[in-house]
Amino acid sequence: MRVNGKDMRTIWVEGDVVKFIDQRFLPHELKIISLGTLEDARAAIADMKVRGAPCIGATALYGMAVAVRNDPSDAAIKTAYDTLNASRPTAVNLKWALDECIKTVNGLAENARAETLFQLAAKNCDDDVQMCSNIGDHGKTLLDEIAKHKKGEPVNILTHCNAGWLATVDWGTAISPIYKAFNAGLNVHVWVDETRPRSQGARLTAWELEQHGVPYTVITDNSGGHLMQHGLVDICLVGTDRTTATGDVCNKIGTYLKALAAFDNNVAFYVCAPSNSIDWHMQDGLKEIPIEMRSGEQEVGWITGRDADGVLRRVTTMPDPKKTRNDAFDVTPRKYITGLITERGICKANRDGLRVLFPEHG
Amino acid sequence: MRVNGKDMRTIWVEGDVVKFIDQRFLPHELKIISLGTLEDARAAIADMKVRGAPCIGATALYGMAVAVRNDPSDAAIKTAYDTLNASRPTAVNLKWALDECIKTVNGLAENARAETLFQLAAKNCDDDVQMCSNIGDHGKTLLDEIAKHKKGEPVNILTHCNAGWLATVDWGTAISPIYKAFNAGLNVHVWVDETRPRSQGARLTAWELEQHGVPYTVITDNSGGHLMQHGLVDICLVGTDRTTATGDVCNKIGTYLKALAAFDNNVAFYVCAPSNSIDWHMQDGLKEIPIEMRSGEQEVGWITGRDADGVLRRVTTMPDPKKTRNDAFDVTPRKYITGLITERGICKANRDGLRVLFPEHG
Repeated sequence: MRVNGKDMRTIWVEGDVVKFIDQRFLPHELKIISLGTLEDARAAIADMKVRGAPCIGATALYGMAVAVRNDPSDAAIKTAYDTLNASRPTAVNLKWALDECIKTVNGLAENARAETLFQLAAKNCDDDVQMCSNIGDHGKTLLDEIAKHKKGEPVNILTHCNAGWLATVDWGTAISPIYKAFNAGLNVHVWVDETRPRSQGARLTAWELEQHGVPYTVITDNSGGHLMQHGLVDICLVGTDRTTATGDVCNKIGTYLKALAAFDNNVAFYVCAPSNSIDWHMQDGLKEIPIEMRSGEQEVGWITGRDADGVLRRVTTMPDPKKTRNDAFDVTPRKYITGLITERGICKANRDGLRVLFPEHG
Repeated sequence: MRVNGKDMRTIWVEGDVVKFIDQRFLPHELKIISLGTLEDARAAIADMKVRGAPCIGATALYGMAVAVRNDPSDAAIKTAYDTLNASRPTAVNLKWALDECIKTVNGLAENARAETLFQLAAKNCDDDVQMCSNIGDHGKTLLDEIAKHKKGEPVNILTHCNAGWLATVDWGTAISPIYKAFNAGLNVHVWVDETRPRSQGARLTAWELEQHGVPYTVITDNSGGHLMQHGLVDICLVGTDRTTATGDVCNKIGTYLKALAAFDNNVAFYVCAPSNSIDWHMQDGLKEIPIEMRSGEQEVGWITGRDADGVLRRVTTMPDPKKTRNDAFDVTPRKYITGLITERGICKANRDGLRVLFPEHG
């Protein structure tokens, strides 16, 4: 999408160098770095220079490609697979991408492996962009429908965390319908949940929307329920890091609370779920999806921001930033989800709904 | 409660000087300032040097007393009443305290007014401490009951914002049962919601518990639902800024989301409500209670904390801290509240429940 008036993706190749946006410095600085080794890729994912399930998947693919370019042996491929697979535990796209790599190089001569993996990564990125674009087109129909009853007043969309283009290669998942609607001239306004502890809403979603010119307001994570009680939210659109075959959704911590509030106030709650976020083997999200625990001290205890002079600083509000806990995701049970928006269309968040759209997994 | 090993209240008189804790600098610095004029009292309340409905009420009483000491005329009393009444819109204790002052000085000679108001303020403070202590005794019975089934494991209490002694004169409301249980040797652990935007949980509740030695963990506002889904919360205890005669509760923004999660997971959700938080004229909290809007830019857009060197700094995580909105409270409908813990005992959060405990308002 648009950055300083130009189109940009989160990860791309220039000559033979893989480049990506180090999202840790946004919205304060647009920092672009190179990915030349397996360790670069592992650190990019584990340290959350990149985040968002599809963007993690794309980074893993290019990580495998550069690792194999550096050492195409079977042993090196196994090391790369294990290293990257351990870098973040929740996003299903990561394992999916790595499995694709193994399938692709299987039986190939060593000297053909790297180029094939670079082609796979490039194709995956283009496919991801198309998938997100399709999600946007399907989701836009919901916003069009709401707009019919708003008499020109803005359609108010609440979103949590960042499921915009920064979380993917381009377009995003939950924000893609908003970009599509905005580009088509619809009057939209986005309530952006701050999304503590890493504030991906305040930092990344706000920055994306600001750059693209979409009207938005950042609110605390505590506010969405109150806004829904007062009719100020027309629809919630969120992303997913892992979706079960039965329609449960694992997404950024706090998603569940917004789903409860939407349910209580009859506000539509849709999850934008590309099919590669779906784990067809899982039945019960609450019991089966592993929830990543991250450092409470580093992420909850300390907050990084820029001061009035533009200098980045870390501060704490707490007497002891070590006395913290940081569960990174939660699971929203399917009963609170109005529907899933996939690249093939919109369906109920349950096994039957998914079966109609993805009969090959039935 | 205990501060650096000594007992302390939030507001007190030394000689003829009223002193109070300026809570804006906690947990970084314990700053004590004097209250000598009406403007001191107005600023203390409006700028949130003090906060929490009972502490606001106590500050308003001493504010009237010092204002009348400076000018005991009817006109000055009216000015003081109007000024203080406008300083915060939501806390019902504020108006209650000011009305008590008017009743008290009514018919008194000008030269007797100030001393009488100082006596009223002192008595109100002592009454408030007793009220909070009683709430603690009643609430402790719930924690004792839970402990019977925990086999020595800690009783996990989730709380939101600060309804500890800093929000009152001493003991607190929601934290009072925890202090009572802890002092009696019960194994308790408190999940402290950070409570953005002003982070009263991370700043004040954590500081109180730290000073008193009560085990606690600060979590983001997004986390409570997930912890409840996994059986990690035994009971929620929160305060209230205004309670309707029908049991609806207006408290810090985000309380409603935790009540929804507690309801969804069969976790007990109790509101500690001193009777002076009850507005006996209100029937429908969502429709009738005015919700204070505060500066989004100042409170959501910018975060104050100390850096690693202990220097207080303001930072923002956002591209534009002005694009924010800051509703300070929300309303939790009575159907999500397990019960109210008052100074007279525990009751259902509805008109009949309150009538039994407070027949004089029936």
